[in-house]
Amino acid sequence: MSTNEVKAFGTEAAEAPLKNLDIQRREVTPHDIQIEILYCGICHSDLHAVRDEWGGTKYPIVPGHEIVGRVTVVGDHVQKFKIGDLAGVGCIVDSCRECEYCKEGEEQFCENGNTIVFNSPDKKHGGITYGGFSENIVVDENYAVHFPETLDLASAAPILCAGITVYSPFKHWNVGPGKKVGIIGIGGLGHIAIKIAKAMGGEVTVFTTSISKADDAKRLGADEVVLSTNREQMKAQSKFDLILDSVSANHDVNAFLRILKVDGALVLVGLPVEQLPVGAFSLVHGRKSFSGSNIGGIRETQEVLDFCAAHHITADIELIRVNQINEAFDRLQKGDVKYRFVVDMASLKN
Amino acid sequence: MSTNEVKAFGTEAAEAPLKNLDIQRREVTPHDIQIEILYCGICHSDLHAVRDEWGGTKYPIVPGHEIVGRVTVVGDHVQKFKIGDLAGVGCIVDSCRECEYCKEGEEQFCENGNTIVFNSPDKKHGGITYGGFSENIVVDENYAVHFPETLDLASAAPILCAGITVYSPFKHWNVGPGKKVGIIGIGGLGHIAIKIAKAMGGEVTVFTTSISKADDAKRLGADEVVLSTNREQMKAQSKFDLILDSVSANHDVNAFLRILKVDGALVLVGLPVEQLPVGAFSLVHGRKSFSGSNIGGIRETQEVLDFCAAHHITADIELIRVNQINEAFDRLQKGDVKYRFVVDMASLKN
Repeated sequence: MSTNEVKAFGTEAAEAPLKNLDIQRREVTPHDIQIEILYCGICHSDLHAVRDEWGGTKYPIVPGHEIVGRVTVVGDHVQKFKIGDLAGVGCIVDSCRECEYCKEGEEQFCENGNTIVFNSPDKKHGGITYGGFSENIVVDENYAVHFPETLDLASAAPILCAGITVYSPFKHWNVGPGKKVGIIGIGGLGHIAIKIAKAMGGEVTVFTTSISKADDAKRLGADEVVLSTNREQMKAQSKFDLILDSVSANHDVNAFLRILKVDGALVLVGLPVEQLPVGAFSLVHGRKSFSGSNIGGIRETQEVLDFCAAHHITADIELIRVNQINEAFDRLQKGDVKYRFVVDMASLKN
Repeated sequence: MSTNEVKAFGTEAAEAPLKNLDIQRREVTPHDIQIEILYCGICHSDLHAVRDEWGGTKYPIVPGHEIVGRVTVVGDHVQKFKIGDLAGVGCIVDSCRECEYCKEGEEQFCENGNTIVFNSPDKKHGGITYGGFSENIVVDENYAVHFPETLDLASAAPILCAGITVYSPFKHWNVGPGKKVGIIGIGGLGHIAIKIAKAMGGEVTVFTTSISKADDAKRLGADEVVLSTNREQMKAQSKFDLILDSVSANHDVNAFLRILKVDGALVLVGLPVEQLPVGAFSLVHGRKSFSGSNIGGIRETQEVLDFCAAHHITADIELIRVNQINEAFDRLQKGDVKYRFVVDMASLKN
């Protein structure tokens, strides 16, 4: 298959810093669009993948899965996009399209295995996928979303992963007026979760281990902030319908299961490496659930973008240049970012 | 308040064997019935409570919460029962009757704290409740159920705790035709869960660590039996809608979370003392839940009794005499029972 050489930023080994790389992208096929990438967010998963912390990374790797850009080429059969449109690409760039989940637009559950935007074998076109730290990307139009013109492009990029990752469970567990929602952790996911839960009408309590973040949580929209290390404060909580757990470090989930309502759910969207111990009594009394959720489908990704546009929601970001990515990864590792890095991809050209 | 002295079997210390005791029961008040106890099942919770393994036991304690008997006295305002009726009493003997859960007949979730049949402070009448290892019991008619005349009384007694404990989550998680149901463990709870899930129309797979129980699982109604220690067999499982976990020992729940469908639930009804480690990836991929469930309300207890009567379901029991209770507790501790001990309470009189 014909390919084009494209500038990118990635690495050839887990220990090596990221650097300029040339990669091959397929030429636009009839259902593809080519997107000139304007901005790409940095998510903790990029860091895990680059450093092979979850295993299975194939090198070279070009990370990046919160991709915003403008359509520069459209294939002959493309219907959703025209040249000049804004477009977004998140985690999923292909799936079987035939299983019950793909048919429902829940490609994240594809029974035959979806194709992820980077470091994923491309079943249809061969090779390995490369992510958004590059000049452009070629993607099937069905796996791209329309990006609202009214949102600030750089700070809205994280909606494509962080945003959908919190919006999807909020929808599934019926967050809305009258619902008491807890959010554990104020990071890339947590900070946008506060904004979205509040915009959905929920009554939002934020749990943090560092009280220094309390003012920021309130500014982001929290109705209440609780220091989760304070036993008295935790005990005094009235019961929650849903608590979203965005923490990727080890932590005691039982303390949060205890303050759920009957049939309440603690929903993990963080990805701690260590297993989390759960006490039987934390679950059986009140028929509670410890659940998990991971990204969302294409339909719902479009939905969260439109929702954020309607409610003027974007992430709080630090905009960086490509040559700051390695430093940003180091800072991300230490949790030193408020609250998401986004790369200005124009800087790749210089 | 007036009381009557009643023969019972219990203990005055965690280390002491159970023995004959005289206890005081309240006289029948206008909404009470007195039940002459014919049979009482033995559940692992009785053992935990008697030996103070969960803490908080007050002595003397008279355990027993799968109580079947015949009504011998009715209070002036009693409407549901008449003298001579069969009646059953399970775990709950009172609750606030005013909270949203009590109003819905889900007294197991009573927001103001329900009263358990034994070792529970009796908020209304004072003192501590005493359970079913006794001649008779006095209980508010609203917390007793009609016991079907067509069931064998001794072997049906365990429906009042073991039966409702598995039936309630089966109803909540919609077990029925076309649903693939797993059951982990073939003990007091697991063996009756097989019968009930099958009668509800589920496709039932039993997971056991001892292949010697395979034939018995099939006899009880299992469509399939899987050795959960066999990795290949576990991997080969197609996905489950619901897996009921009746195991009270430590075990790896991730192996079962992995074989759930999208939105599937692993529901714990066993009560392991140690916390169970849960991996983040076990939950987030496929939006799975690790949940718990504990007994059921009075309405649903009546429902499971009627369901078991309609489907001719009782527990597989060993019927014992009162003077065999201590030995039965020791055997229960070792898991040496197929599958539930039931005490013939007539033996208390001799």
